[in-house]
Amino acid sequence: MNLAHAGQEKNIKIVTVNWIDIMAIGDYSETFDIVPGVRLAATASGIKKQGPDLVLMNCSEGSQVAGVFTTNWFAAAPVQVCRDHLQKAEPAWFLVNSGNANAATGQSGIDNAILSCKSLAAETESSVESVLPFSTGVIGETLPVAKINAAMQGLVQQLDEGNWLEAARGIMTTDTRPKIGSRKLSFNDREVVITGIAKGAGMIEPHMATLLVFLATDAKISQEVLQRSLLAAVNKSFNRITVDSDTSTNDSCMLIATGKSGVELEEGSEAMAEFQRALTALCIELAQSIIKDAEGVSRFVEVSVEKGANGAACLEVAYAIANSPLVKTAIFAGDANWGRIVMAIGKSAMPVDVQSVDLYLGDVCLMRQGQKAEDYTEARGAKIMENEEIGIRVVLNAGEASEKIWTTDLSYDYIKINADYRT
Amino acid sequence: MNLAHAGQEKNIKIVTVNWIDIMAIGDYSETFDIVPGVRLAATASGIKKQGPDLVLMNCSEGSQVAGVFTTNWFAAAPVQVCRDHLQKAEPAWFLVNSGNANAATGQSGIDNAILSCKSLAAETESSVESVLPFSTGVIGETLPVAKINAAMQGLVQQLDEGNWLEAARGIMTTDTRPKIGSRKLSFNDREVVITGIAKGAGMIEPHMATLLVFLATDAKISQEVLQRSLLAAVNKSFNRITVDSDTSTNDSCMLIATGKSGVELEEGSEAMAEFQRALTALCIELAQSIIKDAEGVSRFVEVSVEKGANGAACLEVAYAIANSPLVKTAIFAGDANWGRIVMAIGKSAMPVDVQSVDLYLGDVCLMRQGQKAEDYTEARGAKIMENEEIGIRVVLNAGEASEKIWTTDLSYDYIKINADYRT
Repeated sequence: MNLAHAGQEKNIKIVTVNWIDIMAIGDYSETFDIVPGVRLAATASGIKKQGPDLVLMNCSEGSQVAGVFTTNWFAAAPVQVCRDHLQKAEPAWFLVNSGNANAATGQSGIDNAILSCKSLAAETESSVESVLPFSTGVIGETLPVAKINAAMQGLVQQLDEGNWLEAARGIMTTDTRPKIGSRKLSFNDREVVITGIAKGAGMIEPHMATLLVFLATDAKISQEVLQRSLLAAVNKSFNRITVDSDTSTNDSCMLIATGKSGVELEEGSEAMAEFQRALTALCIELAQSIIKDAEGVSRFVEVSVEKGANGAACLEVAYAIANSPLVKTAIFAGDANWGRIVMAIGKSAMPVDVQSVDLYLGDVCLMRQGQKAEDYTEARGAKIMENEEIGIRVVLNAGEASEKIWTTDLSYDYIKINADYRT
Repeated sequence: MNLAHAGQEKNIKIVTVNWIDIMAIGDYSETFDIVPGVRLAATASGIKKQGPDLVLMNCSEGSQVAGVFTTNWFAAAPVQVCRDHLQKAEPAWFLVNSGNANAATGQSGIDNAILSCKSLAAETESSVESVLPFSTGVIGETLPVAKINAAMQGLVQQLDEGNWLEAARGIMTTDTRPKIGSRKLSFNDREVVITGIAKGAGMIEPHMATLLVFLATDAKISQEVLQRSLLAAVNKSFNRITVDSDTSTNDSCMLIATGKSGVELEEGSEAMAEFQRALTALCIELAQSIIKDAEGVSRFVEVSVEKGANGAACLEVAYAIANSPLVKTAIFAGDANWGRIVMAIGKSAMPVDVQSVDLYLGDVCLMRQGQKAEDYTEARGAKIMENEEIGIRVVLNAGEASEKIWTTDLSYDYIKINADYRT
């Protein structure tokens, strides 16, 4: 069925699209829907001191796969192998380990990534190029290929469509909880599901992708359209979060379309537009889950920059605020120190017309046209800062563009977690 | 005397130029030389809860003055007034308060800065435009002009050439100690002195200038040459340090040349070159003093990037390392987590040829040609990290350019200081 050509787009019904339904920091959901055609398995192979650290995903024949990867020049060995394998064959297998990033490991790192692919290929009678490797964890250490290969047979035997949550747990590093979510769309009584898992808590300012994200849908979508769709979703979600301005060497985000629902989505159709909105919403939910589980997080912060000359100008101001250690420590302290936000706005390399800028904390106006709002009081600012979720809104009054990003505060615990990481 | 034309450059003797003589973090010096023609005074006017907070400097008639200011779009009111007054008259008076930045205060902030200038002008029978105002402290609060004006008469009466250290103390905010230094040059038995004071401990990644710096010399130098000389020195010192990547709204750096030594320095002369080296060395000493007194500092870090395609490429890599919260927390923990340095290098927007990059911690090679050095051991890295002063050296092997910057770690105390700042 090709809805795009069926002239029945008006009948589309959205079943579950909660628009940016921000959960409280402490809350999270472990519910998800299976995706017909996608099987998963997770096991503890001993790379990490404890817990599952090896995940396998398999997609049914005829699936299309899209992917975006880190722009870090020190892209890890598995990222390099992924890019290579994607050009050579249809991917069917996704082999993911946590606990070791296999980054900055040179040619031997690439050899090791390929060795683990070969082991899986032999076990499943597949081509080596149909295996995509992913790693996350400590940078600069040798990948323990023997441990991975020893666990391979058991891993393959466990493959099951119901194992999404186990997989979400298996890719965690400093995460304290799995990130998982689903969206369902209904097209003339046929359902399409999208399910995704993500990991990440630190080293988060993705460029082109985020730490590790695996998404799958049973919609039928061509590879080209799938790739554009993933990019569009990532650019409004994983590419709009920052914990510490640091970009991982291993960022990868994959989207599988198995086609098992029988619902075909073509570019430009209203059905595809609905799919895009649902995919973006799911990606935003997962991206926000990363921020809510960020290393040392005590507050979830949305930075919104409005009426900028263009998107780039808005993003520059937004990231200047979100990545300012002084703004972040003030938020940690619950201090409405708006002077620091002003300082951060002023750092922008792109021109800022100071006398046009308005600044809000939640619904409280702090600054109007470049100076302290007359009705602002410290008490009003302090009230807003008592919340776990804080909105910082800058109105540049210079154009029509707007951007929104999410970040967290900078706490003692961030330092504790990252000072102790390798010990 | 014009040494530039006297043909006697060969007789120049440098008396005190200690090249980047890094002091231990805990050590600092309070010694300085007076600068004939420059008088100073400091008092407690009550802007800060305690301690001196108002400083006055006066330079003798015929002095030349150079200045560089912040590029932050929210340049504070005193910075705007300074720029205006510098265009209108020969500056003679430098009125500096700490405890209040008079930034993001709009037109009333500018009015207040001018009011304080007027009060001083009346007291000293000078023109308003000959007064340059400077402020540092909390952003967004109204400048308490009445307190400043009430203290003015006493301040003027205290003016003395010996009060440099009192002035250095009077401009401090979160600084724990004054930053002061001198250099002496001898030209054919005539001495030239350069003395400077600086403040700053947080909100430090200067662009074009640093927090507050006041330098003076008794050499005779034209304004144009003095301005170029100051810029050159600042670009190798205050513009090469970062604590937290945040750029102050109030950064100002001033250099006075009174000419009282009778030694005239002209551009292009060897004498001027010697002066330039001494000035740069003094600025580096003061800039490093800022890093060593940085908020929460436990380690002094020199990041050196060598053999880059150009200076900008070197600086981008250097700042990516110096401003990475993950690198900084690892340094705080004394953890030679070189994977994070690699990650930071790879963030660069300019191309990095990974397979050419060498990385050193002190004299220990961590990475050669993009992968872990074969002779590197954790023990060797750990040994280096025991020091209070740590050198990170990246060799890009892509060209001839080199840059060096200085930074610090990210500690619990940084967060404590900045979470408590306004309470």
